[in-house]
Amino acid sequence: MKDFDPERLQQQMAFLREIDREKSVLRQTYLHDGSRKENDAEHAWHLALFVLILSEYANEDIDVSHTVAMVLIHDLIEIYAGDTYAYDEAARETQAEREREAADRLFALLPPDQSARLRALFEEFEARETPEAQFAHTVDNMQPTMLNDASDGKSWVEHGVHLSQVLGRNERSREGSEILWDYMLNNFILPHAERGELKPD
Amino acid sequence: MKDFDPERLQQQMAFLREIDREKSVLRQTYLHDGSRKENDAEHAWHLALFVLILSEYANEDIDVSHTVAMVLIHDLIEIYAGDTYAYDEAARETQAEREREAADRLFALLPPDQSARLRALFEEFEARETPEAQFAHTVDNMQPTMLNDASDGKSWVEHGVHLSQVLGRNERSREGSEILWDYMLNNFILPHAERGELKPD
Repeated sequence: MKDFDPERLQQQMAFLREIDREKSVLRQTYLHDGSRKENDAEHAWHLALFVLILSEYANEDIDVSHTVAMVLIHDLIEIYAGDTYAYDEAARETQAEREREAADRLFALLPPDQSARLRALFEEFEARETPEAQFAHTVDNMQPTMLNDASDGKSWVEHGVHLSQVLGRNERSREGSEILWDYMLNNFILPHAERGELKPD
Repeated sequence: MKDFDPERLQQQMAFLREIDREKSVLRQTYLHDGSRKENDAEHAWHLALFVLILSEYANEDIDVSHTVAMVLIHDLIEIYAGDTYAYDEAARETQAEREREAADRLFALLPPDQSARLRALFEEFEARETPEAQFAHTVDNMQPTMLNDASDGKSWVEHGVHLSQVLGRNERSREGSEILWDYMLNNFILPHAERGELKPD
């Protein structure tokens, strides 16, 4: 058996217990069958599978494992900051500051080396500069769009979302993957504009 | 833009949509606050974080990314086979066959190369022979035990679970990590036997 620091393990377990709360952070997106809204933990799991299955479509070669870890932790700070709906302009104005404070608080639970590592991964996602972060954002936009498509645009209809808002939200989705952006535009977005589930402008 | 096969992408998207159903496969374990039972997708996400944070305690050096992928997909087949409660002896008798049929059906949705890769990862988990699979099983046992501890043994009490059943279920948990097994035994299991939330034998 390796030597180990019991206090370190206690910190790690406190973190792993605290993040159970991510399962209670509800998003605005409905499950494919429209039965209920999904939560952040389910969303993060689904994104990880998107990365594992779709990484071949990244515009640039990406480090798949690094990207999987990034999507698994990218919403953790919403435990304290809450989910910000993509089309809630007021909430989005305060989002960055709320999320930074939440990151300070949450990652401090971990031992310093792991705290720094997760914080760096979170900041990399937010900065959206590396191919991994760009691809992570593309699937982060694609997954709820797939669920909106599957549930006949339920969340879009409830919130009266306009096509232009979805296109604006996805302005940079092609940075991670041209192929996936074309797919989601033609299969998950435009058909709902034609059916009126996304409002014209 | 890379060349790509539209039919391949259709298959991948069909798979990613189908696995949304994992969010509706309920487990017997309650969230840390006892508010509701967790589902397989949440469980898999939580396990992936356990692996990312606790891999240093594996008895043998493990490939972390491989283990993360393994825990992310290990319960997918329950979409068709259902969750089998750890202490339901009758259901456990038919579990292996039900799960094999479910794997055949689910992974067939994917293109052949990815189907084979996920199937191999699932079989590796089930065979429990590699250090990665052994560690995956250890955290697969530890995570619900942590939640049972946090929720005052709620699921154990409801099902009238005996200490000997928990110990039997964890007979091989030390194979993945002696340190984590010692931790869970002393922090998550024995205190609940002392408080009577696990029945004596």
